[in-house]
Amino acid sequence: MRNVTKDNITDVFMSYLAEDSDPRVREVMGALVKHLHEFARETNLTHDEWRKGIEFLQGCAAVESEERHEFVLASDVLGLSSLVDMLHSSPEATSSSVLGPFHVSGAPPLAFGGDMKRHYGGPILLAEGTIKDTDGNPIAGAQLDIWQTAPNGKYASQDEEQDTYSFHGLMTVGDDGRYAFTTVKPVEYTVPDDGPVGDILHICGRHPWRPSHLHYIVTAPGYRSLVTEIFPDDDPYLDQDTVFGVRDDLVMTYVKKPASEFPEGMEISGAVAEDFLHVEFDVTLMSED
Amino acid sequence: MRNVTKDNITDVFMSYLAEDSDPRVREVMGALVKHLHEFARETNLTHDEWRKGIEFLQGCAAVESEERHEFVLASDVLGLSSLVDMLHSSPEATSSSVLGPFHVSGAPPLAFGGDMKRHYGGPILLAEGTIKDTDGNPIAGAQLDIWQTAPNGKYASQDEEQDTYSFHGLMTVGDDGRYAFTTVKPVEYTVPDDGPVGDILHICGRHPWRPSHLHYIVTAPGYRSLVTEIFPDDDPYLDQDTVFGVRDDLVMTYVKKPASEFPEGMEISGAVAEDFLHVEFDVTLMSED
Repeated sequence: MRNVTKDNITDVFMSYLAEDSDPRVREVMGALVKHLHEFARETNLTHDEWRKGIEFLQGCAAVESEERHEFVLASDVLGLSSLVDMLHSSPEATSSSVLGPFHVSGAPPLAFGGDMKRHYGGPILLAEGTIKDTDGNPIAGAQLDIWQTAPNGKYASQDEEQDTYSFHGLMTVGDDGRYAFTTVKPVEYTVPDDGPVGDILHICGRHPWRPSHLHYIVTAPGYRSLVTEIFPDDDPYLDQDTVFGVRDDLVMTYVKKPASEFPEGMEISGAVAEDFLHVEFDVTLMSED
Repeated sequence: MRNVTKDNITDVFMSYLAEDSDPRVREVMGALVKHLHEFARETNLTHDEWRKGIEFLQGCAAVESEERHEFVLASDVLGLSSLVDMLHSSPEATSSSVLGPFHVSGAPPLAFGGDMKRHYGGPILLAEGTIKDTDGNPIAGAQLDIWQTAPNGKYASQDEEQDTYSFHGLMTVGDDGRYAFTTVKPVEYTVPDDGPVGDILHICGRHPWRPSHLHYIVTAPGYRSLVTEIFPDDDPYLDQDTVFGVRDDLVMTYVKKPASEFPEGMEISGAVAEDFLHVEFDVTLMSED
């Protein structure tokens, strides 16, 4: 098209998509560009604003690394990550929730009843539950990749003080589908707001806080993988999670119990001298289609 | 909002924008996120597709440098850059057209009638014209930043064989607003398609070609800066510029003239022994508001 105009450019873009290209590529690219163009037209986006957008992406590029996933964080704080999670959640299964930028691969095995708390202080939390299918049957051999913040509000991948896999373990459940581990109650924390995504939060007048959560990736052959989080129902940021991760079925009560009720067979560093917290959280996986 | 859903997440995002934040920030961020969410809902965007999007951005980050502006290129091939240009063009002034990723700052001065061809071979082109305001009066002291491809289809910033500012000069016009320079007719060329943006072009079945053009940035105190391009009307890619840069008023006929008509006072390396091409292209600038 020789005379591209602001009114026909979206159609011209569509005309460039080859008819023998993948129909899904055409669908996704077409919708992406339609909305990108509509956004620019609707806001009458200026060159200066366009330049700020490019500089934002370049700024993300400058801090992006194996340890810091600024583009994922951008998607998280804009709600895109959560929206994709929700589009593919089923009411029959446990809700999925954002992966976030802090997960690293290769966590060491954690036995049933294993101890993630180690030498750290803070409220002891015993978390347990069953991994099951939508009929309620346990899924033998399911794997839980569990990670959370240390009491200082940082993930191991952010914190030179911690071991690579501190507060991170990989548990394989037995025939009964049960998992259990002890840890320190995770704390609320801020997403990294010292980079370009933080700048976006600041100019929008938004805070960078996330409510406390335990993070799980649950996988089992024949089932859809699930990334999810468990939130305590008394967290101050439950109604304003900066990455939109909270779902009704993921909010749990951490029940306070006396030390005398701490069950046999659970590992824990040091004695359970005072009250501990207990949460029972079952995970339901969808079978693969 | 505790129970974020795929239907309310856009509203929840809006509720996070502080009332005392800049109204334009709220408008632009709100429209951006509304369209981003609509795009995901409309396409039922999958986790795999989301991941490919993140990997695309990370891939751009990996090649982004002072010399290679992959995010700008992405904006160019998606038509966003051209759309922003057109949103802020005026029918009274010369159309603006994409800056592209190849411009570098600090070009050396080029005198009126100066020679950008130097030792390069190829069809000689004499380009001249007047920089004027919307009333047709010349704008004394306007500056033209002129750059183009070498005959090998590469810009100096892409090409180790060329000097830093080869085919690039900065001309200041006199009281008559006239500019003139000699060069080699630029050639059509491909945008860099060996990176993530090239991958997008390939999966869309799109070619990476741009029609031949002379690229100008025209500035003058009291006037809006203009980035524009001149295209010859016989270029094979005029109707399918991969970055959507062609506008009706930027397409010119390069008139073939005999060597005997080559004007006095123009520099040129070597003799003008054969026909040369001539283009007269006036540039009209809008005054600043």
